[in-house]
Amino acid sequence: MSLGTIFLSEIFGTGMLTLLGCGVVANVALKGTKGNNGGFLMVTWGWGIAVFAAVFAAAKSGAHLNPSVTLGLIMNGKKDFVPGIPVDFLSTITYFGGELIGAFLGAIVCWLAYKPHFDAEPLAASKLAVFSTGPAIRSTGWNLLAETIGTFVLVFVILTFGGTPSGLGPLAVALLVVGIGLSLGGPTGYAINPARDIGPRIAHAILPIKGKGKSDWSYSWIPIVGPLVGGSLAGIVASFMPIVFTAVK
Amino acid sequence: MSLGTIFLSEIFGTGMLTLLGCGVVANVALKGTKGNNGGFLMVTWGWGIAVFAAVFAAAKSGAHLNPSVTLGLIMNGKKDFVPGIPVDFLSTITYFGGELIGAFLGAIVCWLAYKPHFDAEPLAASKLAVFSTGPAIRSTGWNLLAETIGTFVLVFVILTFGGTPSGLGPLAVALLVVGIGLSLGGPTGYAINPARDIGPRIAHAILPIKGKGKSDWSYSWIPIVGPLVGGSLAGIVASFMPIVFTAVK
Amino acid sequence: MSLGTIFLSEIFGTGMLTLLGCGVVANVALKGTKGNNGGFLMVTWGWGIAVFAAVFAAAKSGAHLNPSVTLGLIMNGKKDFVPGIPVDFLSTITYFGGELIGAFLGAIVCWLAYKPHFDAEPLAASKLAVFSTGPAIRSTGWNLLAETIGTFVLVFVILTFGGTPSGLGPLAVALLVVGIGLSLGGPTGYAINPARDIGPRIAHAILPIKGKGKSDWSYSWIPIVGPLVGGSLAGIVASFMPIVFTAVK
Amino acid sequence: MSLGTIFLSEIFGTGMLTLLGCGVVANVALKGTKGNNGGFLMVTWGWGIAVFAAVFAAAKSGAHLNPSVTLGLIMNGKKDFVPGIPVDFLSTITYFGGELIGAFLGAIVCWLAYKPHFDAEPLAASKLAVFSTGPAIRSTGWNLLAETIGTFVLVFVILTFGGTPSGLGPLAVALLVVGIGLSLGGPTGYAINPARDIGPRIAHAILPIKGKGKSDWSYSWIPIVGPLVGGSLAGIVASFMPIVFTAVK
Repeated sequence: MSLGTIFLSEIFGTGMLTLLGCGVVANVALKGTKGNNGGFLMVTWGWGIAVFAAVFAAAKSGAHLNPSVTLGLIMNGKKDFVPGIPVDFLSTITYFGGELIGAFLGAIVCWLAYKPHFDAEPLAASKLAVFSTGPAIRSTGWNLLAETIGTFVLVFVILTFGGTPSGLGPLAVALLVVGIGLSLGGPTGYAINPARDIGPRIAHAILPIKGKGKSDWSYSWIPIVGPLVGGSLAGIVASFMPIVFTAVK
Repeated sequence: MSLGTIFLSEIFGTGMLTLLGCGVVANVALKGTKGNNGGFLMVTWGWGIAVFAAVFAAAKSGAHLNPSVTLGLIMNGKKDFVPGIPVDFLSTITYFGGELIGAFLGAIVCWLAYKPHFDAEPLAASKLAVFSTGPAIRSTGWNLLAETIGTFVLVFVILTFGGTPSGLGPLAVALLVVGIGLSLGGPTGYAINPARDIGPRIAHAILPIKGKGKSDWSYSWIPIVGPLVGGSLAGIVASFMPIVFTAVK
Repeated sequence: MSLGTIFLSEIFGTGMLTLLGCGVVANVALKGTKGNNGGFLMVTWGWGIAVFAAVFAAAKSGAHLNPSVTLGLIMNGKKDFVPGIPVDFLSTITYFGGELIGAFLGAIVCWLAYKPHFDAEPLAASKLAVFSTGPAIRSTGWNLLAETIGTFVLVFVILTFGGTPSGLGPLAVALLVVGIGLSLGGPTGYAINPARDIGPRIAHAILPIKGKGKSDWSYSWIPIVGPLVGGSLAGIVASFMPIVFTAVK
Repeated sequence: MSLGTIFLSEIFGTGMLTLLGCGVVANVALKGTKGNNGGFLMVTWGWGIAVFAAVFAAAKSGAHLNPSVTLGLIMNGKKDFVPGIPVDFLSTITYFGGELIGAFLGAIVCWLAYKPHFDAEPLAASKLAVFSTGPAIRSTGWNLLAETIGTFVLVFVILTFGGTPSGLGPLAVALLVVGIGLSLGGPTGYAINPARDIGPRIAHAILPIKGKGKSDWSYSWIPIVGPLVGGSLAGIVASFMPIVFTAVK
């Protein structure tokens, strides 16, 4: 296994993630789609299955798909990301780079898939919502906390998956993402992944989307910092408690 | 395995349970959230996946997460809760304590995650609903019966899980909780777990929630007594019928 | 294994089935419940998980839960229902009896769970709908055909489950029942099980339900005959094609 | 294994697919059904479980159910479709033929199941929607692209399923189809399968459906060409990257 494989695998996986994840928001939010106004439960299933598909596509690199997961594994004290890829600066940057580029590219493909509906949609806010998250009630501290808590749950539960033998594989993380969306997605729309938010936001800023409005850069650091803090905390808490959590290896 | 591990494991698991479980109600019930007014099906999936995540987090202690499960196992005649932890007064109290404290702490984190929405929500009843269950039609006897039936189904089916070989693991109990919510959650909102109701209710009473109103203590004994009776009955029925139910061990 | 075990196992399983299955309809249809007006998707998940729970409860008898399944297995040429229970008149009657009695008893417990909501509900039709199915558009031939097709799919796919190795166990049949409801439940509400319809209908006729109205006996033979024909056809088709369907044993 | 078995297996499987898939649209779109106006999430679950059931029914032929999958496997460089059936002109035609005929026959059975509701429905467009897909916003290039992207995801992820060991079996592809519907079904209703669209469209053209209107033949080539291109691309991309995707065999 080479870092090039890791890089491409994460690009494909995270690209699949934002293609399908941004896609379900497009289906719900943009004018004239078949799934228009389909509800929050629909959005959470869409994102959950986006992760499901992405895990298969990026199986070879361990399907991080998320810098918070990468960072959580580091803080947890893992020696290797996957067999043959030791945790070091270069491999970390490779994961981060693949995740970011994949998320950016997936959002572009999503935009192409929904091009006529982006053109038909009058509201700029609905267009941005397809790409990036935004707060329900804008409040720096509380928004940051909500993203931190949601990502803590994501990375913490992933780190405990090994504790119960089951054949669920990628379904477990898919359901977990559905659940975090349902339960903790209310305040900020659950980025819980810096790449998932900033990659598509850059796409939004660059793409020639008709009547697209601003990319809300003033909020953009929150779905980066919150998830990185949450993922780190999860890695640390799990590492300090090998007695309590079966799965910590 | 020590009782300290059991205690911490149940605290983490039941904390995860009420963080995500109360979270989905907050998302549906509080003003201005992304999932506002998302419907009952959304609530049941949220609670189901809350259990799913909690089972992973508390795998080491067998993930009771619920005094009715603990009591049901005792009434069923189990000798050990998990290997190395015999059923006795001290271990039972350890489980009960971890479950109660975890449920209390998880609700506090949920409140923090939704703080701006608690502040924005005008109705005190919606705020209490995030923490604790309440009857759709208040009627002591029938409410008690509904909680008893729901918990009987929960504990009884859990006790029969071993009868069918499948790799579902935590998914089985998650789906069961979704189903009990859908089918038997109509009259009382399905506490089916004394810790899940009283822990967050204590949090509601203590926390400085703006305009929170009363904690409805007059109802609070029903989601304690009903589930304890239902869980006990399930344990007894299953133990008297080892001929009928494959899974009773 | 004795016929008494079979009998009790099917009673418990089919009782679980109608308790949870009728329960989700009660939650959606009756006045003042938490899940009131929750939609058709909610109903189908409720019935699917009702089957899921019932399969665990009746694992020892092979969880027929449905005379159409029993009949389908007979027409398929099975020699034994479960190891030690040969297919003969007495065992068949035992399955049929357990299924019918279980379905009857489960509906009674459901009525008790929702008693205050049965009292509050003004419409007799909504009360009957909790117990038994009825046609969306009354038309003897087409209603019969819809029930026949739905049950054919149920029994046929169950007979092919062995063809794909998977650890899904009871989840496979649960999802199948969700799907049949979504796809073929539109015309008649998918009884696809004579016991599930006639057992609760008898309960409806007998129970002292306030303002309950008629039990619609003129329709009652359709969800008996249609499912029995559909299940038989499925068994026959599958038996004639061992070359095509892997799973036929 | 003979080509006759392949042919019959694909007919049964694809017939199950369109019976249940067209069925859920009938339930949502036609007047007076129990699931009328049930929403897009309901439609996607219905189609997902339609695939789930179809995979069991067609297990013996590897359950292609879709010419895009057959073509994707060819472009990926597979030597055999299933053990004993080498990839050649005759076997390919056998798969295509079985898929087309099955899709045609399943739609006819669906029409029979919903006959009274087809009669009651006043809108011709709703009747056609049961059989075949149509664009939300008609735009040849973009509609073609949307079908191509959706089918690429379908075939690409199927080709990577082997990369993660899990006991999900048919559930994996079912969830994938739910997800593609949720995320990429907005612009065209996600045919992602030429047989699924043209088979039922032919049925629509032939059947004596009351007030059925036109069969929209001018659009009919898009859900054929788009999926064939998407499936081919997926097969090619996966074959060129055996280093990146574990599952490519």
